[in-house]
Amino acid sequence: MKSISLLGASGSIGTQTLNILDQHPDQFRLVACTVGKNIDKVREIIEKYSPKLVSVQKKEDAEQLKLEYDGKVTILYGEEGLVEAAVHPEAEMVVNAVIGSVGLYPTLQAIKEKKTIALANKETLVTAGHIVMEEAKNHGVSILPVDSEHSAIFQCLQGEKEKNIERLVLTASGGSFRDRTREQLKGVSVDEALNHPNWSMGAKITIDSATMMNKGLEVIEAHWLFHLPYEQIDVILHRESIIHSMVEFHDSSVIAQLGTPDMRVPIMYALSYPDRLPLPQASRLSLTEIGQLHFEKMDMNRFRCLQFAYEAGRQGGTFPTVLNAANEVAVAAFLERKIEFLQIEDLIEQALSRHESIEHPDLTTIQEVDKETRNYVQTLLSHT
Amino acid sequence: MKSISLLGASGSIGTQTLNILDQHPDQFRLVACTVGKNIDKVREIIEKYSPKLVSVQKKEDAEQLKLEYDGKVTILYGEEGLVEAAVHPEAEMVVNAVIGSVGLYPTLQAIKEKKTIALANKETLVTAGHIVMEEAKNHGVSILPVDSEHSAIFQCLQGEKEKNIERLVLTASGGSFRDRTREQLKGVSVDEALNHPNWSMGAKITIDSATMMNKGLEVIEAHWLFHLPYEQIDVILHRESIIHSMVEFHDSSVIAQLGTPDMRVPIMYALSYPDRLPLPQASRLSLTEIGQLHFEKMDMNRFRCLQFAYEAGRQGGTFPTVLNAANEVAVAAFLERKIEFLQIEDLIEQALSRHESIEHPDLTTIQEVDKETRNYVQTLLSHT
Repeated sequence: MKSISLLGASGSIGTQTLNILDQHPDQFRLVACTVGKNIDKVREIIEKYSPKLVSVQKKEDAEQLKLEYDGKVTILYGEEGLVEAAVHPEAEMVVNAVIGSVGLYPTLQAIKEKKTIALANKETLVTAGHIVMEEAKNHGVSILPVDSEHSAIFQCLQGEKEKNIERLVLTASGGSFRDRTREQLKGVSVDEALNHPNWSMGAKITIDSATMMNKGLEVIEAHWLFHLPYEQIDVILHRESIIHSMVEFHDSSVIAQLGTPDMRVPIMYALSYPDRLPLPQASRLSLTEIGQLHFEKMDMNRFRCLQFAYEAGRQGGTFPTVLNAANEVAVAAFLERKIEFLQIEDLIEQALSRHESIEHPDLTTIQEVDKETRNYVQTLLSHT
Repeated sequence: MKSISLLGASGSIGTQTLNILDQHPDQFRLVACTVGKNIDKVREIIEKYSPKLVSVQKKEDAEQLKLEYDGKVTILYGEEGLVEAAVHPEAEMVVNAVIGSVGLYPTLQAIKEKKTIALANKETLVTAGHIVMEEAKNHGVSILPVDSEHSAIFQCLQGEKEKNIERLVLTASGGSFRDRTREQLKGVSVDEALNHPNWSMGAKITIDSATMMNKGLEVIEAHWLFHLPYEQIDVILHRESIIHSMVEFHDSSVIAQLGTPDMRVPIMYALSYPDRLPLPQASRLSLTEIGQLHFEKMDMNRFRCLQFAYEAGRQGGTFPTVLNAANEVAVAAFLERKIEFLQIEDLIEQALSRHESIEHPDLTTIQEVDKETRNYVQTLLSHT
């Protein structure tokens, strides 16, 4: 019986994590969780899983819940509550599925308490990979990837030695606009951008897939998770999203992980690692039904965000923080229909080009640069 | 430094094994080897690798070599020489690359002497898998597959638990005649059959690829190597031979091994296992250059030999011995232009349908059934 603390229980990854807990109630126990504003979801979770601790975003929601569940469960709120959930003494594993840079600090606190981390929060590694991986090493903690691409690579590396890796190959579906030229991207609507061909995901990540920033952030995450320089991390376009990623070794052998697009598989893998548990609900891969798999080179000029991510990653320091913060503000502005699709790239480029990087930034510096970048991009937006 | 005994040094696998030894002279040492009739190859090997023991097929060749190399190297011949090479006290690993059922007895003797076995000889597992795997278990010996498909599965299983396997999927290129109907197979020539689309191999195995018997024998080998019932071993048609085989786990995740068709990769993997050594000469896989991978269902009516193999495997006992012996005689007759291509299947079917299986056969029984089957098929041939 593994005791789980789930940060971000009402989002896409959080909900699917709970679905896995439902399928294996004898294997997992929910001891703590956090939810943003979805208070009905909190009530549902408390009644179904009887966690010891629940934290929400706002004080007033916490007070309402305390009235309802006083004595039954500890109710907290805000960043402090998030950290309390992450370090809950009974939790062996923290599933970090919160969205945004708010996920970073609780992860570090959980690492200090020697919790195994199942990581779905991109910002944690993108902005502070150097801190997180060093803390994990110092405390002997495993960081288990939940993203399908990193889970694929992690699965391919089981029983293998790091020294034998030649390169990682991340696959990208190409997102909603993969068949459009840059010219054809002018004036595309939010609804068109949200129509991802393979995966059903949240709005932010679907837009990140269309701009290829999602793959760029994954490249930076892979760099930290697997201790490899950017020269050994490639991205190829694979429109069927069946091969989730692969590893080439120095004997030229390539190991790949495949499957139908179902996020429960990588979530389950992280939860059950180093074992695998049955997932009878998942649809089985039939390559003969699919018939064909396609692979194309990635065009860095077509997908400028991927180029930005490689550059920010290679330069390191606070560049990845700027990349991520500028992207978050720009995507939000696009979703609010304040800017055009191609302006997302322009805003990121402007933020990166004015930035003077700080080497080996600590947590405070990262948070300051994050805030400062958001303000800068907001200023740019107010002038458009 | 790993000391190797190489059985069948002048064949396709043997030559490529020597090529690997050339690339890593600091890792491997040839202490013993056997060659059939290619005496010039023996001279070349003695001068280049200075083995302690060499064995050839015929007494007169051994006597000639003794005259030339007396005192420098022990020269033996025949089955006894093959066994002496397999159990050479300095050898840690035996690479069994001999062709035909003659490979079985030396393998068993090597297992008794606790040598690690790198197995390229199909007959060893097809006819006596139950004996070989039990002896290997009893003596704590690893049987490392050299075939590209089994090596692929073996690589995919590193770091995994057998209990989590849902099924194995062997891929088949389809061989020289994959695009022909049964009607179009009438009257095909030996030269057409020898023209394999992907792999450059010996004549026997190239014909076995065209009839799909090669895949059938591999299914039986996989059954023994990976301890799985036939219901959990599938075959699909994959014309590019890029995915060499795969494993599906019960969480629906699939791990595959890919690469350009180069037998040195699986040979090297067996030699260097559990490590991987660089193979800079091997051409790197570029999926974006290949562009597309295709997968089709395997038609058991089109490829009757595959059906025969599944049936012989499921029934067990001496059936796989009959399957293999009948196939060897029939393929030899086809290569000698004595029979038509489709008669290969007919001869195998006749041999199987008259056979009364003996359960749990010992080595002597297997050898008797092998001989008896060959005689029977020869009798059929003499009447055609």
